[in-house]
Amino acid sequence: MKIAVIGAGALGLYYGAMLQKGGYDVHFLLRSDYQAIHDGGLTIYSINGDFHLSQLQVYRSSEQIGVVDVVIVGLKTFSNGDYFPLLESLVGPNTTILTLQNGLGNEEQLAALFGANKIMGGVAFLCSNRGEPGTVHHLGAGRIIVGEFAGSNMERAKEIARMFEHSGVECKATDDLAKARWEKLVWNIPFNGICALLQKPVDFLLANARLRKLVKEIMLEVIAGANASQISQPLPANLADAMISFTENMGAYRPSMMIDRELGRPLELEAIFAIPLERATAGGVPMVRTEELLDLLAAGEMYCQ
Amino acid sequence: MKIAVIGAGALGLYYGAMLQKGGYDVHFLLRSDYQAIHDGGLTIYSINGDFHLSQLQVYRSSEQIGVVDVVIVGLKTFSNGDYFPLLESLVGPNTTILTLQNGLGNEEQLAALFGANKIMGGVAFLCSNRGEPGTVHHLGAGRIIVGEFAGSNMERAKEIARMFEHSGVECKATDDLAKARWEKLVWNIPFNGICALLQKPVDFLLANARLRKLVKEIMLEVIAGANASQISQPLPANLADAMISFTENMGAYRPSMMIDRELGRPLELEAIFAIPLERATAGGVPMVRTEELLDLLAAGEMYCQ
Repeated sequence: MKIAVIGAGALGLYYGAMLQKGGYDVHFLLRSDYQAIHDGGLTIYSINGDFHLSQLQVYRSSEQIGVVDVVIVGLKTFSNGDYFPLLESLVGPNTTILTLQNGLGNEEQLAALFGANKIMGGVAFLCSNRGEPGTVHHLGAGRIIVGEFAGSNMERAKEIARMFEHSGVECKATDDLAKARWEKLVWNIPFNGICALLQKPVDFLLANARLRKLVKEIMLEVIAGANASQISQPLPANLADAMISFTENMGAYRPSMMIDRELGRPLELEAIFAIPLERATAGGVPMVRTEELLDLLAAGEMYCQ
Repeated sequence: MKIAVIGAGALGLYYGAMLQKGGYDVHFLLRSDYQAIHDGGLTIYSINGDFHLSQLQVYRSSEQIGVVDVVIVGLKTFSNGDYFPLLESLVGPNTTILTLQNGLGNEEQLAALFGANKIMGGVAFLCSNRGEPGTVHHLGAGRIIVGEFAGSNMERAKEIARMFEHSGVECKATDDLAKARWEKLVWNIPFNGICALLQKPVDFLLANARLRKLVKEIMLEVIAGANASQISQPLPANLADAMISFTENMGAYRPSMMIDRELGRPLELEAIFAIPLERATAGGVPMVRTEELLDLLAAGEMYCQ
């Protein structure tokens, strides 16, 4: 099985490394880390045990990779405008495109370019940050839920899940990808949003009574938004408390959007905020706290809507 | 008429200077500006024409001032815990205490210490900032609405209004002080809050479509909150657009809370946010956007509630 990883940030590098360690033929499209990984390999500092890969198949352009069986997309969603030039040469008649990106709308954009039947989505619950070039810190979690974008056939999702499981990554197939995506948004919207806005890690939010209350209120709002959109089973209200408890174990974790803002990079506001907001609003749930957070985050961004 | 100005920030110094220029016997309690004003006087750079007062009656403690006819309170509301030691020696049987402070709750706190019949409130619409020690920049507006805290007798309010008018400050008496206070909150809550949080002046908010929308949404929420509390006549919804238009003329004005945060001073969260929120909630209007703004601003403050 030939796999290409496109958008090799912390997430792409971590899962790509796990798959290579699991024996798969993995090809990495790299930019900033190209030289470091080409020369010195890739080190994963992981809660499950550190490991080093000394040889990786790395490229500066996807033309050099050629057609693959599976494309794993780990791009930041603000780069989705580059889907076509980055993926075109990797996709043949039997290629599966698996986007592990955040938020909503990615599968739709890929489907418009490559056809809905090629597209799968994966929701990754992974705490990871990039370190020095050629290093990734895997701080916690790591499980993935994969599902078809269109249709209810579970065979391919199960196959992808086996591929990850075989490589030591917990992975489940789902017949309701949208539900899994919304589930992650219940975490992502409050924690990515507030941490990015205030430039404070997750434990700061949990230790502050007002922010902890706000996190929960936003979670309940996103749960209501999810349940007003097209998902097979409603998300339960107690998911909020469960996610807050789960976050207690993360220590001073800095969500990706907090780091993006700190480094002056664009924020994933469209996928994580604007599209979910639009869908919830269409379902009759305006998610006013989420919208306010988006309004405050969007100030000073190139992002406009 | 002997007047003491307590809490001589930009607002206290400006109105105190106008009253002195108008011929009144004004005494200023000063801290940081004491030496500069004692030695070199006070300069007001005003849109209505700059002026300089070379001699002011300035003090480091209110005991030196003695009993006065009118105490004008311009303290930051986070210093309200100092009301008693600061005001005690100024207040005789016939003293009027006029608080020009921001937000809600100040009159109640003064009434508990000195008796409700002594207390008046004034709502100042003033754009001013402190400059170097001994200087104040009056950037725009300046009118005051004054009213009794308790009772509907307008005589004293009219007398105070005449005092200001005689000194060149536009001033009206009202029989509904609470309504005037809420009216100012319609401006203060969104602009002070968002400018402080984002560290951006008012024109940045107006130029950004999302923030301008958020400002208006918060204004409408505060109008609803006002109308759910004890005021004689409802505030009209079009007050929001009127205030936004009025703000267009302010340029890059930096509201006081923005400056407080920039300088690491406490924020007036209790008077401008928490008490209005409490009263609106008691009236059945939870003001969720206002509460979210408070939650985000309160992070990292000493303020807790």
